[in-house]
Amino acid sequence: MKKYKRNQRIGALMKIFAEKPNYVFSYNYFSEIFNAAKSTISEDMAIVKELVSEFDYGKIETIPGASGGAVFVPILGVKEKTEILNELCSLFSHKNRILPGGFIYMTDIFNNPNIVLNIAKLISTEFSSEKIDCIITVETKGIPVAILSGQRLNVPVAVIRKNNKVTEGSTVSINYVSGSSNNVQAMSLSKRSLKENSKVLIVDDFMKGGGTCKGMADMMREFNADVVGTAVVIETKEPKKKLVDDYLSLLLLNDINEKDGLIDIHPNYNLLK
Amino acid sequence: MKKYKRNQRIGALMKIFAEKPNYVFSYNYFSEIFNAAKSTISEDMAIVKELVSEFDYGKIETIPGASGGAVFVPILGVKEKTEILNELCSLFSHKNRILPGGFIYMTDIFNNPNIVLNIAKLISTEFSSEKIDCIITVETKGIPVAILSGQRLNVPVAVIRKNNKVTEGSTVSINYVSGSSNNVQAMSLSKRSLKENSKVLIVDDFMKGGGTCKGMADMMREFNADVVGTAVVIETKEPKKKLVDDYLSLLLLNDINEKDGLIDIHPNYNLLK
Repeated sequence: MKKYKRNQRIGALMKIFAEKPNYVFSYNYFSEIFNAAKSTISEDMAIVKELVSEFDYGKIETIPGASGGAVFVPILGVKEKTEILNELCSLFSHKNRILPGGFIYMTDIFNNPNIVLNIAKLISTEFSSEKIDCIITVETKGIPVAILSGQRLNVPVAVIRKNNKVTEGSTVSINYVSGSSNNVQAMSLSKRSLKENSKVLIVDDFMKGGGTCKGMADMMREFNADVVGTAVVIETKEPKKKLVDDYLSLLLLNDINEKDGLIDIHPNYNLLK
Repeated sequence: MKKYKRNQRIGALMKIFAEKPNYVFSYNYFSEIFNAAKSTISEDMAIVKELVSEFDYGKIETIPGASGGAVFVPILGVKEKTEILNELCSLFSHKNRILPGGFIYMTDIFNNPNIVLNIAKLISTEFSSEKIDCIITVETKGIPVAILSGQRLNVPVAVIRKNNKVTEGSTVSINYVSGSSNNVQAMSLSKRSLKENSKVLIVDDFMKGGGTCKGMADMMREFNADVVGTAVVIETKEPKKKLVDDYLSLLLLNDINEKDGLIDIHPNYNLLK
């Protein structure tokens, strides 16, 4: 069987960790794929641990013992956070984005995988120390953010639907009031998609009044789930009082000046503390 | 400024490549973040190139010259493809998945980021040598597959909506006949989400009659787009004649026996040739 050089194992380890963050790989697994003794893997891991810390990529946690393993927990440093937040602001504030009625066209951003990956890196950094069983979102625009945040945190996602589908099996449905439009709408979630008593993180793209996030939190009560956090990519400055109290936003939208084509948006500076 | 050991640079290179496959990084970029001469980076790259080939991870392509760079093109080997396809079959064929009416509950699978990542690895492997500008899907269940395939291939995604939304700006709408239900439905795509004359890959979760994929292909004609491929995760054996001719499916669903709780599903063995 093939033997590999240390350089090669270090590279392979980082590739494996980067593709599946927050996932615990056993030493046995590495031993097998590298055809190397566990003591060799331990030495490799010490090098990887140091490089992850040197480059400010987060941390490698090792679990000792016979069933031991290692997990890569990516945590962005302030420099990378700042870069991503500034890039997002400049993307969202381009004047061509203003639509009739003072809306902002954001669909391309929320469907661009590498931009959404950056958003997911910010969200997963903030919640990396929480125990989360599932990420919850509502269709449609928030799905990419939820999926990539789930991939970073290694947790499944449950998508609340606005229409009931036969392929969802039995569902729980509730009505909620969209804070901005004052419309009563329905949302439904497949019973199978979330275990009772789960710890969940609610994720959405945009918050104005907070009605949708409140609706999701209400839905979570039907599943006896514990909401450990709510994260939105953008919140509007007005209305100041949202229907949910405790949430994290990455960006703050102060104002849209349709006439002059100006969008005033800035990072949530609390993230950089 | 900090200097790094070769080991550390190799690990960092693989982490960077793994997070952004099919993205061309310049040697200047690596030179800066590693605080190292380009000749050093070239030597590192030779090591990385070899390890990627040794571990059957795909290939590193280097672009020579002053504006040179390097890109990681992940391509699954037959062993990994086989493992993923078998794992998918065993997931989809669990008898608890049968719903009243002979439907299969699949929502949890299509919302599980690490399972969808494996699906995206298969799809991106098949299309890694095609020039693709955009991945197209229709809401809702195919979105995670599209986003993660887009992330692997480094291309944006455009999501066709079933309802027209004010936040999409001006849209193109068409009607299509869902092959399985014979219903006429509308789909619309924001004009801004796809440039004219793009080369697109159509992606969806499930194909029975092929009506939805045909609808997406029809929509693409409205944008003068060139459909370079169509990929679905599961196709049903019946009807044999689909409304689209040229498509790739990862799995074939032969039969659902509701009475005995049996789901007969197998890999598309052409992928393993």
